[in-house]
Amino acid sequence: MIPSLVESLAIENTTRIVLLVLDGLGDLPNPDREWLSPLEAARTPNFDALAPRCALGRILPVAQGITPGSGPGHLALFGYDPLETVVGRGVLEAIGADFELQPGDVAARANFCTVDGAGVITDRRAGRIPSEECARLVARLQAALPRIEDVEILLRPGKGHRFVAVLRGPGLAGEVSDADPHKEGKKVPSAVPLTTEAGAAKTARIVNTLVARAAEVLKEERPANAALMRGFSARPHFPGFRERFKLRAAALAAYPMYRGVAQLAGMAVLPVGDTPGDAFAAAGKAWNDHDFFFIHIKGTDQAGEDGDFDAKVATIEAVDQALPALLALRPDVLCVSGDHSTPVPVKQHSWHPVPTLVHAPFCGADRLPRFHERNARAGSLGVFPSKDLMAVLMANAGRLDKYGA
Amino acid sequence: MIPSLVESLAIENTTRIVLLVLDGLGDLPNPDREWLSPLEAARTPNFDALAPRCALGRILPVAQGITPGSGPGHLALFGYDPLETVVGRGVLEAIGADFELQPGDVAARANFCTVDGAGVITDRRAGRIPSEECARLVARLQAALPRIEDVEILLRPGKGHRFVAVLRGPGLAGEVSDADPHKEGKKVPSAVPLTTEAGAAKTARIVNTLVARAAEVLKEERPANAALMRGFSARPHFPGFRERFKLRAAALAAYPMYRGVAQLAGMAVLPVGDTPGDAFAAAGKAWNDHDFFFIHIKGTDQAGEDGDFDAKVATIEAVDQALPALLALRPDVLCVSGDHSTPVPVKQHSWHPVPTLVHAPFCGADRLPRFHERNARAGSLGVFPSKDLMAVLMANAGRLDKYGA
Repeated sequence: MIPSLVESLAIENTTRIVLLVLDGLGDLPNPDREWLSPLEAARTPNFDALAPRCALGRILPVAQGITPGSGPGHLALFGYDPLETVVGRGVLEAIGADFELQPGDVAARANFCTVDGAGVITDRRAGRIPSEECARLVARLQAALPRIEDVEILLRPGKGHRFVAVLRGPGLAGEVSDADPHKEGKKVPSAVPLTTEAGAAKTARIVNTLVARAAEVLKEERPANAALMRGFSARPHFPGFRERFKLRAAALAAYPMYRGVAQLAGMAVLPVGDTPGDAFAAAGKAWNDHDFFFIHIKGTDQAGEDGDFDAKVATIEAVDQALPALLALRPDVLCVSGDHSTPVPVKQHSWHPVPTLVHAPFCGADRLPRFHERNARAGSLGVFPSKDLMAVLMANAGRLDKYGA
Repeated sequence: MIPSLVESLAIENTTRIVLLVLDGLGDLPNPDREWLSPLEAARTPNFDALAPRCALGRILPVAQGITPGSGPGHLALFGYDPLETVVGRGVLEAIGADFELQPGDVAARANFCTVDGAGVITDRRAGRIPSEECARLVARLQAALPRIEDVEILLRPGKGHRFVAVLRGPGLAGEVSDADPHKEGKKVPSAVPLTTEAGAAKTARIVNTLVARAAEVLKEERPANAALMRGFSARPHFPGFRERFKLRAAALAAYPMYRGVAQLAGMAVLPVGDTPGDAFAAAGKAWNDHDFFFIHIKGTDQAGEDGDFDAKVATIEAVDQALPALLALRPDVLCVSGDHSTPVPVKQHSWHPVPTLVHAPFCGADRLPRFHERNARAGSLGVFPSKDLMAVLMANAGRLDKYGA
């Protein structure tokens, strides 16, 4: 990655930036709620008091029409180009399972399946066994296969038939094909190295041994008598916040996935409770040791995925109620936004731009009465790619030098 | 530079375009002035009469969050990508000192310093000597060092300890390291060529001779007994307005820096007085010989940097008062904008988008009552990169062919 313009202009300062991410914040006017969005319907006296003195706008996580996963959504917020900075599926899955990946680790998505006497797959999902059964089988495998050659095998159960496998040892690489035919009626294919690098060959050998031994361990089990593995990827290394932005960044996030992405971005991941108030209190405790605070609130996304308008409103109101504690810390720059939209009518992530609020000494004052999607359309920030948000926050924090004379 | 789309579509026409640049025009709502910006607070009957029949919008000089210097700000207005078209520090400094750089010239920023008996720098700024002392020393150096080998040495004093050095002669190049350690406690390093090109080696040799001879000339002076030089750069050559846009462009700018950048862009730099009325009169005189007029007004930027709200308002009102004389010329396209924002509260250049007005037969009519930042947010032009403004002006001037059938 060529250091970007922003990185080359980043300068030290004593200012503090808070990026408050309400996951899946953006929404749509709801026909069942007099065409209001959750942000419009919520009672938010604290945001309302702040809004007129803020700059509002909207950010586009990846590109017009593109619905991002949580990984790209957050990488863009953190100033990485989500099309250039790719985190492998295995790594994202491991992060989501709360693995603390170390440099050199290779992670994979795995799942149990059913094979017949000839080793041909008859059910790729092993009858969708319950999570408890998965946990029992993963524990069995883990006990039988703690290590292959000089490589530690680390397994963690997921939902239903899914689990995560991490290989930890010297000289591994992620460029290995799937040990998964992606359809029934075939045998489990051998993983093959996808580059001529020695690491890929070693990794493929370990994977093939792991898959073969797993089938031996599981051979009396029914229906989960074999395992498939795919999406091999090494923990990526890209320059972090300190290196890129001269910022000592801290993450306050209750869910593993977001802690993991923050960790990849070079943030210190701090312990935090479940409520917005917990997160703001944790930020306060770390206030002197950091100058960038990523605070992640999950409830808005969860409510959006559940199609639960009232729950989304309630999460927004809970954030608003706790807001005075955050404002009392006097952040030089406060930004409220989201990693993507999760509109209640859509019930999943969507491509719609995300309403964004910036409060800082020189942010301007849009004099828009409230913070919501409709006002964000009229705000001075306009619409811009999420990956450029960090530049706006750095500028507002007096942390960017002038470009050219 | 690969000819851009706009260049490939440029066609001749008899239309005239006026680009009226109010330097640092963009501003912020001012808490001490009932949250009005200078454009909002100014009495501008002539702009007000024009505005409803104009297209309004905002331009972004470099990128979100990036504060541009005057060089990149103007290069973008002139249709150059400010990230690709870079003008070296030495060249900008020379231009700002009103040097008429010729092709092949190499310019550098220079300053006096204090060295001890062993040649070690004890003060990089020679005690920040007054400008008069600097002028005396530069005159001494210039008299003693008119030429080295076949290279003319041209020196010009700046503010305090600073001066500008231009090398003029055959076979020079700008790719030379600084003759400046950038810190005290070290000797002045030799300049070394940064490429294998013969020109760089020759330039380094001339520079090292110049620095050594300067130290001899200055050895009895106190505290300024040596000189440092940095930011070597050759006058760049890039295609100009005639070549790129089929426009015969003229610049009406009172300040050297802007005349210099206009000259680099291939404009004829015409003599002009200090007031907006002078500039519009000068444009009138040149009306038959040119079809693009860059008119630069400095007062808005100066007032912004001084944090002087009333002075910024006064400059805007002075432009408005003189406007009828410009409109009487009947330009086919009139654009009013800025190279960047210099908000009064910020007291320096900033990253905020710049309000922009376009008046032309087919510009549309946004029916917004006045020209200012808030209305510009709602204008039909939206927000777009400054480097694309020339395309919009060319289109409005009937000077761009259709793309494709």
